[in-house]
Amino acid sequence: MSYNLLKGKRGIIFGALDANSIAWKTAERVHEEGGSFVLTNAPIAMRMGQINELAEKTGSQIVPADATSIEDLENLVQKSVEILGGKLDFVLHSIGMSVNVRKGKHYTDQNYDWTQKGWDVSAVSFHKTMQTLYKNDAMNEWGSIVALTYMASQRVFPDYNDMADNKAYLESIARSFGYFFGKEKKVRVNTISQSPTPTTAGQGVKGFDSFISYAEKMSPLGNATALDCANYTIAMFSDLTKRVTLQNLYNDGGFSNMGVSNEVIEAISKE
Amino acid sequence: MSYNLLKGKRGIIFGALDANSIAWKTAERVHEEGGSFVLTNAPIAMRMGQINELAEKTGSQIVPADATSIEDLENLVQKSVEILGGKLDFVLHSIGMSVNVRKGKHYTDQNYDWTQKGWDVSAVSFHKTMQTLYKNDAMNEWGSIVALTYMASQRVFPDYNDMADNKAYLESIARSFGYFFGKEKKVRVNTISQSPTPTTAGQGVKGFDSFISYAEKMSPLGNATALDCANYTIAMFSDLTKRVTLQNLYNDGGFSNMGVSNEVIEAISKE
Amino acid sequence: MSYNLLKGKRGIIFGALDANSIAWKTAERVHEEGGSFVLTNAPIAMRMGQINELAEKTGSQIVPADATSIEDLENLVQKSVEILGGKLDFVLHSIGMSVNVRKGKHYTDQNYDWTQKGWDVSAVSFHKTMQTLYKNDAMNEWGSIVALTYMASQRVFPDYNDMADNKAYLESIARSFGYFFGKEKKVRVNTISQSPTPTTAGQGVKGFDSFISYAEKMSPLGNATALDCANYTIAMFSDLTKRVTLQNLYNDGGFSNMGVSNEVIEAISKE
Amino acid sequence: MSYNLLKGKRGIIFGALDANSIAWKTAERVHEEGGSFVLTNAPIAMRMGQINELAEKTGSQIVPADATSIEDLENLVQKSVEILGGKLDFVLHSIGMSVNVRKGKHYTDQNYDWTQKGWDVSAVSFHKTMQTLYKNDAMNEWGSIVALTYMASQRVFPDYNDMADNKAYLESIARSFGYFFGKEKKVRVNTISQSPTPTTAGQGVKGFDSFISYAEKMSPLGNATALDCANYTIAMFSDLTKRVTLQNLYNDGGFSNMGVSNEVIEAISKE
Repeated sequence: MSYNLLKGKRGIIFGALDANSIAWKTAERVHEEGGSFVLTNAPIAMRMGQINELAEKTGSQIVPADATSIEDLENLVQKSVEILGGKLDFVLHSIGMSVNVRKGKHYTDQNYDWTQKGWDVSAVSFHKTMQTLYKNDAMNEWGSIVALTYMASQRVFPDYNDMADNKAYLESIARSFGYFFGKEKKVRVNTISQSPTPTTAGQGVKGFDSFISYAEKMSPLGNATALDCANYTIAMFSDLTKRVTLQNLYNDGGFSNMGVSNEVIEAISKE
Repeated sequence: MSYNLLKGKRGIIFGALDANSIAWKTAERVHEEGGSFVLTNAPIAMRMGQINELAEKTGSQIVPADATSIEDLENLVQKSVEILGGKLDFVLHSIGMSVNVRKGKHYTDQNYDWTQKGWDVSAVSFHKTMQTLYKNDAMNEWGSIVALTYMASQRVFPDYNDMADNKAYLESIARSFGYFFGKEKKVRVNTISQSPTPTTAGQGVKGFDSFISYAEKMSPLGNATALDCANYTIAMFSDLTKRVTLQNLYNDGGFSNMGVSNEVIEAISKE
Repeated sequence: MSYNLLKGKRGIIFGALDANSIAWKTAERVHEEGGSFVLTNAPIAMRMGQINELAEKTGSQIVPADATSIEDLENLVQKSVEILGGKLDFVLHSIGMSVNVRKGKHYTDQNYDWTQKGWDVSAVSFHKTMQTLYKNDAMNEWGSIVALTYMASQRVFPDYNDMADNKAYLESIARSFGYFFGKEKKVRVNTISQSPTPTTAGQGVKGFDSFISYAEKMSPLGNATALDCANYTIAMFSDLTKRVTLQNLYNDGGFSNMGVSNEVIEAISKE
Repeated sequence: MSYNLLKGKRGIIFGALDANSIAWKTAERVHEEGGSFVLTNAPIAMRMGQINELAEKTGSQIVPADATSIEDLENLVQKSVEILGGKLDFVLHSIGMSVNVRKGKHYTDQNYDWTQKGWDVSAVSFHKTMQTLYKNDAMNEWGSIVALTYMASQRVFPDYNDMADNKAYLESIARSFGYFFGKEKKVRVNTISQSPTPTTAGQGVKGFDSFISYAEKMSPLGNATALDCANYTIAMFSDLTKRVTLQNLYNDGGFSNMGVSNEVIEAISKE
């Protein structure tokens, strides 16, 4: 589908790793909707990914940036405005990584250097990105900034480990910075809290398949896909949602407001 | 603006009273986006309104219905499917009225017959509408039902009186019925919690101007207008938000996640 | 245990049906903590219960009252003040009943006369009680009013039926009335949202055993018992919580902030 | 008042700086209720404080600890068990500090080294404390851990700066660690979200007086005092709240559930 919802709009998309990424789908959808953008990812992540293919397909340029480096972000923001020919209208932050998860450290046995690294990459990078955009006055009025999050920020999912705390911090940044970005520049800032999605990144989490299946049983409309998330992000980037800000928006087939579903009760009863 | 977001989609819009109504703006925007619909309102409300003008402008038919009457709702749903030539894709519920407010009864001195009347009109009417749609199997898969609500359902706004409780009940209906409508018919159900809006209905509430001004000062992006709400509703009716359900979505310039703004603190300090 | 937490305090306890009732346990605990009270229940419920036994055990008098009748409530409040020898310090509202549930009507097939009856008994009765207390100026400063609720008010539990909506309305009343009761009389009003509890009333709900077992698996500390709830209520009646008001307090072993537990995932995986 | 609520219970109290501290008041109240404890604070903070006076008054020993140092925490936990003669029943975490706030850096102009320092002191210290308690198996079953937080974690208070994000991270730790502590050791973990309180620490925040006055006008029961907070903490440490866990509990005179009060509207209107 295509509605020209983002015609003439410019932006930056972080975190497109491969065709399973939500950011990848979002880039494709933004392109279909007439938006232009710069793709970015950490230099190290890009070596593993197929981002060039996406850039070609969408007529985009790539500007590598380590999102924990202010210097890289400064370069990214300035280059993006230059490349795209004007200030930005949208930014997607889709970055998350926990060293504790990768190395198999239990939540009750954290290595705090790793905790700090994951926090910096997954959460502070969002503040750094916005601070750089803000200081460079790089956003147009009524622009829209979205970061992807997960409900573990608000409720316990034991295997999500320290990413839960990182996402809570990220969502708080959205509110805290969103206030100033709104008041001073009329820019909105929101997070989208997505169903568990079988991305390449998500697959690192222990017992992920069982969990996806549980979430599917719990959600009246089933789990939201990466494409669903891309579409919701389009809506949030468009002019249809100009006064929506500081919100954490669940795109999850209804999971977040379920106490229990009949299917889950049945599965438990059989046991 | 127009993106053809609702091309080929059919629906019912409740509650368009006059050009200040959110439902009125929504009807105009749905029409612009290519959707077709039946307009409805209580017979008594229609005599006061200018709904014929809206019907003409949008090429719509009007089917009067008292939304507390199952008989009227049965007629409305069946006629709408007939008139529009197929099952429905969207429904907007924008109905609210408190007799205690109208008659100036304080919240601590309710007339319970009036409480019951307001509850039936403002909240149960939403259940009755959905139950009628559900029993008549009148919604298409991936259809979208939206009811308008206000944040008094979750936090105290003293002058909102028993409408606060009615809106809490309404939001609960959205979740409760949304589960079954999702599971059985793949229909999503959400509420939009809108900034205070100077509609003709809103003007009945005591001290409304001061309150609008307070909300404006508190909201980083200012109060959302009726048009903003219409646009957000369009997004929720469109295929961009297919897996968003059971949610209460704030369209309020950020008010709902503010603790205090600098402008409010300044106003208080001056005093 | 006994700490004399409620020494010299006077109150009313609604809803003690039999030894399984939360209100029954609460009455016993209030008595142990040195509080005195009047017991009340609907005349019809009392014929089924063993409330006389409780009255004897706790040295209390019984004043029957239909909590939907203002006349009965007036009598109850005035008699209670008389019997207890002064204004009241605490009130427990523990009343709930859905005719739709009792008669086996599905949520999508409500009989609206029954919906209204359940709403009046389960939710409006709380407003009527507080309005009567307020008009009679029957509460001491820093008094405490608690109503029992259930999390279905906020998230979907399909078999909870229209009680979910009633509890949402009840919780809203706690906030709305709590504002005026706080501001004018320094009285606090809160709801306690309890784990599913195998009371005689709870046993009417379909599939209740499976549900109890699910909640047990989900809650890190297991389901809160009726005695746990009584103890939490004591804390809320005591002077330890004088500035806690308008809150909905979860007494549920942590259920409310769980996304999923390892035990639930395991049960699902086995299936 | 004294009820012997904590007779025989042992614990650790972090963060008693001077007689204005919530931790100080809590220590006094715990002592009155029959509990015994070790006092701790950062070596640097203790030089400024009068903690020796408190230790004497409550018959407690002091074990200095930098709460960001695992080594110090190991020493603290082991010494505390030794000194008190058994495993612990309660822990109060009352630690918070933002270098960005102290140095006057605006939220949109953070120094990220300072951001990291504040995060470590204010939030990660809570994880480190619990991880040390957990690994040392130092808590008794049905023990209770409480951390103090502030509502800026959930809603925007512009001057609260990066402490807002730190508190969001802290509250997430309470849930995440609380799950494992509950499941494995039957220990409950909660945060208390307190009214703005004129402590020595709080006085560093810009415009704090205006803000206190605003919160007072907004809260139906007025701002909760340090003593109120100490009392609520006693309730959370006692056996009255054994199944309350993973919760963020507002002790704020009702502020958190207010949209607006009549007094605030009046103050705005006059302006």
